[in-house]
Amino acid sequence: MSAKGKRDRSGYLIKQRAFLKVYLLSSIEKQPNHGNALLEELIEKFKPYAYQPQHSEVYRALHELMEDGYLRRNKVTKEGSKYQEIAIYYIKDKDLVNAYKKTVKADLERSLGLIKKALDDNYI
Amino acid sequence: MSAKGKRDRSGYLIKQRAFLKVYLLSSIEKQPNHGNALLEELIEKFKPYAYQPQHSEVYRALHELMEDGYLRRNKVTKEGSKYQEIAIYYIKDKDLVNAYKKTVKADLERSLGLIKKALDDNYI
Repeated sequence: MSAKGKRDRSGYLIKQRAFLKVYLLSSIEKQPNHGNALLEELIEKFKPYAYQPQHSEVYRALHELMEDGYLRRNKVTKEGSKYQEIAIYYIKDKDLVNAYKKTVKADLERSLGLIKKALDDNYI
Repeated sequence: MSAKGKRDRSGYLIKQRAFLKVYLLSSIEKQPNHGNALLEELIEKFKPYAYQPQHSEVYRALHELMEDGYLRRNKVTKEGSKYQEIAIYYIKDKDLVNAYKKTVKADLERSLGLIKKALDDNYI
């Protein structure tokens, strides 16, 4: 549930994994979707910020959200295909999702404060 | 000169190394100092943000700033000691420092925008 990664406990800015998880949960809350569509949506969203979330990072976030009980997935046969299956992700536990989003919000606000401070402290 | 790290080219938030380098340069611009004093100053500054920069990270930043020609250092005998030396860091090239700070400013502003966007997009 922590918004911090395992590698660095120093408490610098919010970790990418938590940042992406919140976006994934918000998107799936609006509409269940498959992994590639979620990835494409994120890539599009962050283009103006020169940030391109990587495939591996987004899929790891989805898998962790499943393992931790936030999401469930359902495999369906791909349209126009007899055998190819795709996994659709759904919200599994709405209360858990809300609690996680609240934790991440605090970390986003902390990070916002840290960056504002750096701009104030180092630039006139 | 890039504010991005080598490990992750996806362009997420500003890297800790660049963030610390700008603080180190600003502090040394005001007053040349030794590594431990610089580290203590940073730890104190970020306490309200639950961020504790690590010794190794701050020293790596100082060494890179030396290698890249921003800083020079001078070894002096420690006060009250006959043999123990400490390294004092000084600005070496003020123009280079200003150019670097400008690059990092742009990355701080980009990061600020990304965090604001996450708060806007995921929380009402």
